[in-house]
Amino acid sequence: MDTLSLQAKFLKLRSKKSFELFVVFIIIFSAMMVGAKTYDIPAWSMQVIIWLDLAITLIFLVEISIRFLGEENKRDFFKNGWNVFDTTIVLISLIPIQEGDMALLGRLVRIFRVLRMVSIIPELRLLLNSLLKALPQLGYVLLLMFIIFYIYAAIGATLFETINPALWGDISRAMLTLFRVMTFEDWSDVMYETMEVYPMSWAFYISFIFLSAFAFLNMVIGIVVGAMDAEHKLMEQETSTEPSLSDLQRELGELKLMVSSLGSGKK
Amino acid sequence: MDTLSLQAKFLKLRSKKSFELFVVFIIIFSAMMVGAKTYDIPAWSMQVIIWLDLAITLIFLVEISIRFLGEENKRDFFKNGWNVFDTTIVLISLIPIQEGDMALLGRLVRIFRVLRMVSIIPELRLLLNSLLKALPQLGYVLLLMFIIFYIYAAIGATLFETINPALWGDISRAMLTLFRVMTFEDWSDVMYETMEVYPMSWAFYISFIFLSAFAFLNMVIGIVVGAMDAEHKLMEQETSTEPSLSDLQRELGELKLMVSSLGSGKK
Amino acid sequence: MDTLSLQAKFLKLRSKKSFELFVVFIIIFSAMMVGAKTYDIPAWSMQVIIWLDLAITLIFLVEISIRFLGEENKRDFFKNGWNVFDTTIVLISLIPIQEGDMALLGRLVRIFRVLRMVSIIPELRLLLNSLLKALPQLGYVLLLMFIIFYIYAAIGATLFETINPALWGDISRAMLTLFRVMTFEDWSDVMYETMEVYPMSWAFYISFIFLSAFAFLNMVIGIVVGAMDAEHKLMEQETSTEPSLSDLQRELGELKLMVSSLGSGKK
Amino acid sequence: MDTLSLQAKFLKLRSKKSFELFVVFIIIFSAMMVGAKTYDIPAWSMQVIIWLDLAITLIFLVEISIRFLGEENKRDFFKNGWNVFDTTIVLISLIPIQEGDMALLGRLVRIFRVLRMVSIIPELRLLLNSLLKALPQLGYVLLLMFIIFYIYAAIGATLFETINPALWGDISRAMLTLFRVMTFEDWSDVMYETMEVYPMSWAFYISFIFLSAFAFLNMVIGIVVGAMDAEHKLMEQETSTEPSLSDLQRELGELKLMVSSLGSGKK
Repeated sequence: MDTLSLQAKFLKLRSKKSFELFVVFIIIFSAMMVGAKTYDIPAWSMQVIIWLDLAITLIFLVEISIRFLGEENKRDFFKNGWNVFDTTIVLISLIPIQEGDMALLGRLVRIFRVLRMVSIIPELRLLLNSLLKALPQLGYVLLLMFIIFYIYAAIGATLFETINPALWGDISRAMLTLFRVMTFEDWSDVMYETMEVYPMSWAFYISFIFLSAFAFLNMVIGIVVGAMDAEHKLMEQETSTEPSLSDLQRELGELKLMVSSLGSGKK
Repeated sequence: MDTLSLQAKFLKLRSKKSFELFVVFIIIFSAMMVGAKTYDIPAWSMQVIIWLDLAITLIFLVEISIRFLGEENKRDFFKNGWNVFDTTIVLISLIPIQEGDMALLGRLVRIFRVLRMVSIIPELRLLLNSLLKALPQLGYVLLLMFIIFYIYAAIGATLFETINPALWGDISRAMLTLFRVMTFEDWSDVMYETMEVYPMSWAFYISFIFLSAFAFLNMVIGIVVGAMDAEHKLMEQETSTEPSLSDLQRELGELKLMVSSLGSGKK
Repeated sequence: MDTLSLQAKFLKLRSKKSFELFVVFIIIFSAMMVGAKTYDIPAWSMQVIIWLDLAITLIFLVEISIRFLGEENKRDFFKNGWNVFDTTIVLISLIPIQEGDMALLGRLVRIFRVLRMVSIIPELRLLLNSLLKALPQLGYVLLLMFIIFYIYAAIGATLFETINPALWGDISRAMLTLFRVMTFEDWSDVMYETMEVYPMSWAFYISFIFLSAFAFLNMVIGIVVGAMDAEHKLMEQETSTEPSLSDLQRELGELKLMVSSLGSGKK
Repeated sequence: MDTLSLQAKFLKLRSKKSFELFVVFIIIFSAMMVGAKTYDIPAWSMQVIIWLDLAITLIFLVEISIRFLGEENKRDFFKNGWNVFDTTIVLISLIPIQEGDMALLGRLVRIFRVLRMVSIIPELRLLLNSLLKALPQLGYVLLLMFIIFYIYAAIGATLFETINPALWGDISRAMLTLFRVMTFEDWSDVMYETMEVYPMSWAFYISFIFLSAFAFLNMVIGIVVGAMDAEHKLMEQETSTEPSLSDLQRELGELKLMVSSLGSGKK
């Protein structure tokens, strides 16, 4: 009971809007510090932020510990992806950072602390959940894109290798070059270069742009239609307290039976 | 009553299509003047435009004054965002501009006068309203984007600082560079530069482009679905004079009662 | 009657799929000629195409003449936009082109002949119709975009004029530069140039990109929602043979009356 | 019967998820080999992959042979596009590749082997089917785009030929340049060059960008609306077990007849 009530208290604290805003403010401010070494900030205010930052990490740590202790089956705790995510973030946040000593790794660790925001803001979790749910339906379009990329990269690496080894030297370089072409980034320079040797190579680029744009468009449309479908189903569930037409038909059938029994009972 | 009838008159003037078109024409023409100092325009025609422009500002001023006087509770007047907007624009338009004297500020003031168009065209107000209504639902996606930008900017600033300080010198510069990458603006130059030191850094750029494009796409889809949802609800309200299926079910129930009472009454 | 039957014959000829394909083929081939002066084409085959091209123009001319003669009120003929369009194209196609003499104008005239395709393919007319119908709803978003462009161009021309007169010299140049920024075309070069003088000018570009992208997005969404709305209404009209829920309610009311009269009649 | 049961066995093998994954893995690995000549891979492991790759091709060959033998009318077999596709891919995969001898062609053949993935993964076939189904509705928009491109290319080739023959030398080059402008790829460089001779030529580019963007947008919207329409019809079919409002109306009519016969029978 004790753990549960403590857990409820922490949950209440975490879901308070004012606490949420306070934490988000501290995290963002603390994150800004990493890049702001060169700005002139009074030493004492920086110290306050560092202490507040540490305090938040501790609150998170205590909260997760209580959540973990409150779980009856300790194994189930780590089956929930968000629990694993929260624990990892808090543990990474706890790694002490000494300037000068492994400074590079220390700064990278600090950076990932900003992900604590995802822990504290439920809307961000919802958003990430919906993003992750959209991924699987992208799987086969991504595979198709890979096939398109691979075929064009292989052709490019075979034909254009001698023209510009930096761009077409091997298949992985050619794929990077094709990704660049797909984002329309200086693709005409790439094309004009190969057109000097193969004057018809514009067909290679144009057909690639069409195919990849078409596959990409299909992906976007797939997501849009999927999202609207989900929205539509949600709306239908909301109106599910309404009787269906079948219900009305059944009632009409019963009425008919009653009226016909009236007729037969009269005889 | 006097104020009210005057107010009604001005409202009628403002909502007349011909007056609206005249004002829009004068505003656009007057706006063109700011940039057209070097073109050869007859001095007298320019003078006419300046006088007409002033006249419009005065009409707006009188109209707002009457609206303000007509308001019973003066405080409520400034609670309406559009009243504040209109008043600000008219007051700014009234600032006298002398060439030569504070010319820069004068020109900036003139520029903002073009916003009077929003005051006069009701459709633009509707459009702005709908744009502003779409903003809050973007909030969390923007926060997610900030987190993505921040993490990548911090990694970039940590790893690539020595390669090109102009692009990756501190976190704010790195964020600007990443925004540039996100718009596909010469991003391959940025990438090739860092790939000379870190050959695997293409993964940094490709993953960033994928993540930010995915979050952006999600934002767009969110707005589209939201807009269609609103449209759908509007259409349903329009057809709300239709009885619902529940209404029909209730009537069927009443019929059944009547028929069964007929049956029992006969016995 | 004679004119009508002739008109019917030409209409039948024009709507035949084989004739349509033949005409499209000749038009495209004839269009290709304009740019293909340098290729080696046998003189006789080119001559055949020129004769066929002329023949098609004559068929079109005869067909339009008959349509015009068949119209009872000659004025109504030119009230139909497509009639005006067809007549203009055919008349332009009839202008004789002599190489060497006014060659430039001659070539431009030849170019516009390709628009005869729109005359002959009904699906293209439908497409253009739907494009034109979508235009008016864009009007106010375009006006809003103009206001955004104007304000930013005026600010840019005021502040950055001395930095690069070629880009920011006057308002019209600044608007062209902003259009370039909006298409993400080397916009970072434009930005880095002004950031050397005004280090905060990135805010100018980023806010402009956000505002214009937001207005553009809104325009796209407006068109999409409009298109789907139209589609939806079309579908509802198709199912309008179905009785409405109100119809059913009225019938239920009649039934109730009948049953209650049964009950009262029994007494 | 023998062929049929063999066919069923192979079909079962092909549709097994584990076999599918195994084949996809081998194909991708084998594909990687083409570009990976320079990496240090142990000779024996490469040999294993080559043998496995050959084995898969043989399994495919046997499976298609059985499918072909099982077909009663041999001509119908090649009327199915997928059968033709599968046979072509397998036959191309069977072409022996000797390094050194016709190496270029050999590598290109190897590349197309990756298309065997489409043979094995049913979801990719579905995706390709839906992509191909979307093509015809694009036909007329593409024709419209061709007309827009052609007219602008012809004007460009006529006016700008002397300015930069590499970009505007003939119509085909001008079309490539316009495609580049449409993808916003260094289009301002193209524009500034011609603006030096024709200061108003910005109108040429801006109007082209607007027209082509508008046609492109229309195409996208057409596909989206089409996709949602198809989705909608699918959903309606799913709920087609529900009685229609007409059904209910008919039943109400029958009820009325019964009640009125009751009333008349009583007299």
